[in-house]
Amino acid sequence: MIVLFTDFGLEGPYTGQVKAVLSRTAPGIPVVDLFADAPAGLAKPAAYLLAAYGVWFPPGTVLLAVIDPGVGSARSPVIVEGGGRWYVGPDNGLFEIVARRAATVRSWEIQWRPEALSASFHGRDLFAPVAGQIARGGQLPGLARATEIARYSDWPDDLPEIVYIDRYGNAMTGLRAAMLPEGARLAVAERVLTRALTFSAVPPGEPFWYENSNGLAEIAVNAGRAADNLRLAIGSAVEILR
Amino acid sequence: MIVLFTDFGLEGPYTGQVKAVLSRTAPGIPVVDLFADAPAGLAKPAAYLLAAYGVWFPPGTVLLAVIDPGVGSARSPVIVEGGGRWYVGPDNGLFEIVARRAATVRSWEIQWRPEALSASFHGRDLFAPVAGQIARGGQLPGLARATEIARYSDWPDDLPEIVYIDRYGNAMTGLRAAMLPEGARLAVAERVLTRALTFSAVPPGEPFWYENSNGLAEIAVNAGRAADNLRLAIGSAVEILR
Amino acid sequence: MIVLFTDFGLEGPYTGQVKAVLSRTAPGIPVVDLFADAPAGLAKPAAYLLAAYGVWFPPGTVLLAVIDPGVGSARSPVIVEGGGRWYVGPDNGLFEIVARRAATVRSWEIQWRPEALSASFHGRDLFAPVAGQIARGGQLPGLARATEIARYSDWPDDLPEIVYIDRYGNAMTGLRAAMLPEGARLAVAERVLTRALTFSAVPPGEPFWYENSNGLAEIAVNAGRAADNLRLAIGSAVEILR
Repeated sequence: MIVLFTDFGLEGPYTGQVKAVLSRTAPGIPVVDLFADAPAGLAKPAAYLLAAYGVWFPPGTVLLAVIDPGVGSARSPVIVEGGGRWYVGPDNGLFEIVARRAATVRSWEIQWRPEALSASFHGRDLFAPVAGQIARGGQLPGLARATEIARYSDWPDDLPEIVYIDRYGNAMTGLRAAMLPEGARLAVAERVLTRALTFSAVPPGEPFWYENSNGLAEIAVNAGRAADNLRLAIGSAVEILR
Repeated sequence: MIVLFTDFGLEGPYTGQVKAVLSRTAPGIPVVDLFADAPAGLAKPAAYLLAAYGVWFPPGTVLLAVIDPGVGSARSPVIVEGGGRWYVGPDNGLFEIVARRAATVRSWEIQWRPEALSASFHGRDLFAPVAGQIARGGQLPGLARATEIARYSDWPDDLPEIVYIDRYGNAMTGLRAAMLPEGARLAVAERVLTRALTFSAVPPGEPFWYENSNGLAEIAVNAGRAADNLRLAIGSAVEILR
Repeated sequence: MIVLFTDFGLEGPYTGQVKAVLSRTAPGIPVVDLFADAPAGLAKPAAYLLAAYGVWFPPGTVLLAVIDPGVGSARSPVIVEGGGRWYVGPDNGLFEIVARRAATVRSWEIQWRPEALSASFHGRDLFAPVAGQIARGGQLPGLARATEIARYSDWPDDLPEIVYIDRYGNAMTGLRAAMLPEGARLAVAERVLTRALTFSAVPPGEPFWYENSNGLAEIAVNAGRAADNLRLAIGSAVEILR
């Protein structure tokens, strides 16, 4: 299976062209849109989101992950293999958390170049053909060279910030709920929130936090829009209170 | 064919994860996104929309229908078979109109539970695997118990309210056009609208109603956005004038 | 491959129903969403967008192109074959630029009608079944009559207007970059923009134009939203300065 994690959106031409390439390169292999609205141009919050959601897929999955504000600049195109999953995309920090959490990691710089490489759309021209080849062959295509990806050792293991706001207005943090101390409360926007198990356990209108279905601490309001109510955006700080 | 009717949106992680599950459970079976923006958290208007659009699909279709504000609470997961179509989702009124209009109806409570059931995403963890199994086998999986779904007998057969606003700003009502008296006019937002056959039969800027391509009475403006012009939202009242 | 170019959106019922028809008519043939947000109801800018993006696909591709504000009126349903690609949709100018740029063009009026033809959704009822038949058979289905499509000879070869705004706020023009004089600057919204090769070659916040990945001149701001900054919309004029 090939999984797309991008900021390309679905309605415009970008994801469709990527899928057309995948359809030719890896015919018959299912392609799943995981995120088409990952934090636009922001590799850091996207890295925590990718790490939390990527591991939900079985080993062997190929994740085409493109948050690439520096397309056309010097950043390298890379392949990262961690926990048996393959990640393909730009070497700009997007794979930092995946690499840090995987038991074993290997990485390569992609040296292959297509005949026609646009300046602005490596997702279609470079990353998609490589992802398709890996998905079809179950292994690395030639023309990649083992290398270390750039590391961002000053990034925390869990990010105390909002990393994604979903269509219901729920605000995901970069914190894994399982790593938080028992009884932890989260302070955001001058409110202190306690943990609940489900939306329906909380009175309507009341903000709370809970462990979302992929393990992240997420801020929500039963029958309301937390991000609007609390004025949260990607990058808003979250403080952990014991 | 498996048809998705949800309020999950397409760009975030929810529909993608549901499709990943379906791809594993029912490989090779086409999955179609019917609505990913059905009325968020509102089972009642969604029930009229689902009934109008579900019957467009041929018998044997499996409709995975998840508008589930009470996820994690006591509402049951159910399977409804009506008119040869299978519906899978929460027992919260979403299937009331489907059941009422079908010549024959059977229903089951799903008793199977996955090994890992998140508190907030039964669409992925519970309903999708069941829908996939039905789609693959053409019959009911084990571990479901024949039951009556909860009935909402006070809901009308046709709902005189706006139930959906589409991307053109057209406002669908919960009224079947074929059930309206000949020459009926619809009053909304202090305007009285007459029926037209097509957009192009009406002067630009003029609001009217017409029978949409799935049989619902829909309020529109030629070359305009009816919902914006008339300030309509889901739940806005519609009055039938003879 | 069948490629969708429409203003239907993806989340509501329109694209899903089209895909359900294609799945029945042309089972197993990949369907790609190229644009679901092409200029709503505006055949002229859409014609330049379609011409620029259609040629990226290999010969043999079937493009189902539906921008159809006159649905239900007298405009004809047509098939255009140009450069080995098949285009199916309404005869309202949408195929003018495709036809003008192709070395050889053939066109037909679709005379076949489905048993049930809704007044407002020919994309689903008429165009999709025809596109599916062409995709499956690799040739024209019966019941179409060779004809000339309506021509719009007063439209320019390249349109000096904004034709599309993408999710990053970049504004595509209807101008092919390769047709512009060397060193050309583009004037929009009282600003004069010079050309850059990539986003990262320009200081953050600075507007510029570049050749996008499908050959159109596109107006952008590094790390910003050009359409918002410059107040551009579909139809905004662009002037070419030498």
